[in-house]
Amino acid sequence: MMDSARFATGVDVRNACRSGELTDQTSGLAPGFAQANLAILPKDLAFGFLLFCRRNPKPCPILDVTEPGSPVPSTIAPTADLRTDLPRYRIWKYGELVDEPTDLSDYWQDDLVSFVIGCSFTFESALHRAEIPVRHVEQGVNVPMYKTSRVCRPAGIFHGPMVVSMRPLTPANAIAAVQITSRFPDVHGAPIHLGLPHLLGIDDLSKPDFGDAVPVRDDEIPVFWACGVTPQAVAMSVKPPLMITHSPGCMFVSDVLDESLAVG
Amino acid sequence: MMDSARFATGVDVRNACRSGELTDQTSGLAPGFAQANLAILPKDLAFGFLLFCRRNPKPCPILDVTEPGSPVPSTIAPTADLRTDLPRYRIWKYGELVDEPTDLSDYWQDDLVSFVIGCSFTFESALHRAEIPVRHVEQGVNVPMYKTSRVCRPAGIFHGPMVVSMRPLTPANAIAAVQITSRFPDVHGAPIHLGLPHLLGIDDLSKPDFGDAVPVRDDEIPVFWACGVTPQAVAMSVKPPLMITHSPGCMFVSDVLDESLAVG
Repeated sequence: MMDSARFATGVDVRNACRSGELTDQTSGLAPGFAQANLAILPKDLAFGFLLFCRRNPKPCPILDVTEPGSPVPSTIAPTADLRTDLPRYRIWKYGELVDEPTDLSDYWQDDLVSFVIGCSFTFESALHRAEIPVRHVEQGVNVPMYKTSRVCRPAGIFHGPMVVSMRPLTPANAIAAVQITSRFPDVHGAPIHLGLPHLLGIDDLSKPDFGDAVPVRDDEIPVFWACGVTPQAVAMSVKPPLMITHSPGCMFVSDVLDESLAVG
Repeated sequence: MMDSARFATGVDVRNACRSGELTDQTSGLAPGFAQANLAILPKDLAFGFLLFCRRNPKPCPILDVTEPGSPVPSTIAPTADLRTDLPRYRIWKYGELVDEPTDLSDYWQDDLVSFVIGCSFTFESALHRAEIPVRHVEQGVNVPMYKTSRVCRPAGIFHGPMVVSMRPLTPANAIAAVQITSRFPDVHGAPIHLGLPHLLGIDDLSKPDFGDAVPVRDDEIPVFWACGVTPQAVAMSVKPPLMITHSPGCMFVSDVLDESLAVG
């Protein structure tokens, strides 16, 4: 167990990753600093992927994109090195998981482009401050995620269904959650749907496609947000020769404050 | 049928009321100008009623309160005279409807205090601009309203259940409606509830307590806003010697623009 009090900032977390001290999940570390998903692709796929994200901003909110070959997300963490500053990575070749290293020294190429993508941790932290309980956090499991019948707008070779995450909320908390998450357009923003899961093509909430099921109580409705798994799942379905992502829960921690991603 | 193009502003509508030319509903007149509910009570009940509204701002959003004996809502329409400038009034004595005059010359007293209370017309106009269809407007009927099991915070002799209005919306439109109506805290603001009507003590949506039933389609959820009928219903239940209200649909049209009641 890490001593989370030692990790006050994004720099603290990244230094511990870089030194090899931190190789585990980042949940709860550097509170207030925005954590993010990572997707790295060769440059020949980068334009299509960027355009796909631009056309689908709710599931694919881009916080930063590097220059080809550069490991520096200069907008959100100019001192970071994406090759070393995450706890753990996943290496995918032709869509198959082949390695989970703690740095990218064996895999880096000069044509790689890194996409840093907003993460729901940012808005969950805002929900927490508003005393809105989030079931999967309470239960210490992963958020339940579902492939939907809603199709993303395609771009280049990239296409696929939108993936959503689900949080059960009372009606009053669902309304407050719409208000709160609307302030965070760069991290999925407002829900895309609430109630009536069958309208999203979800027949059984107890069988998520990713993550863990959580109970929906009688006085709650399911509330659905576009999910950052969408761009990874879509990119992966193309089975590129090389794709690199963060390992689940082992996020990139930026210098940007969660609250600085809020509008209004 | 009035020539609605002739009524461009609140002043136009009020002048036509004052001259006796306009004695019918104000829906659609002076588009963009905030319309409002009216409740007039003797001064000895005014403090309790004002405190009740202050403690229950979502159902009872006060836009203006006159000095005792003054018919001038000086904040929202300084040239208006509340005794003549509405199309039609209702006179209640000890809780019984006794008259529906077009002016108050026969009923005015020097101890009367007028409360001008925000109306959902303001946020419905914003929903309309966002192309969110409102069922009861489409169907040309009154919005369905329901007494709920939710109790208002009492003040003095005033107490009672919160009344809500209901609009069926698709999930996506329900989310957008939360965002849009949140900008209008002075006219009921965000919904107080959505989905799961039984949690409000509403067993049958097809049997509203006021207004007209509207269908809720399979791809819609019921969305509930606190309703301006609440303060009138609460005041009426006290059966005061004299209470004056607007006649349903015959609203006071102010000088304030709907959009000026928006925050953010």
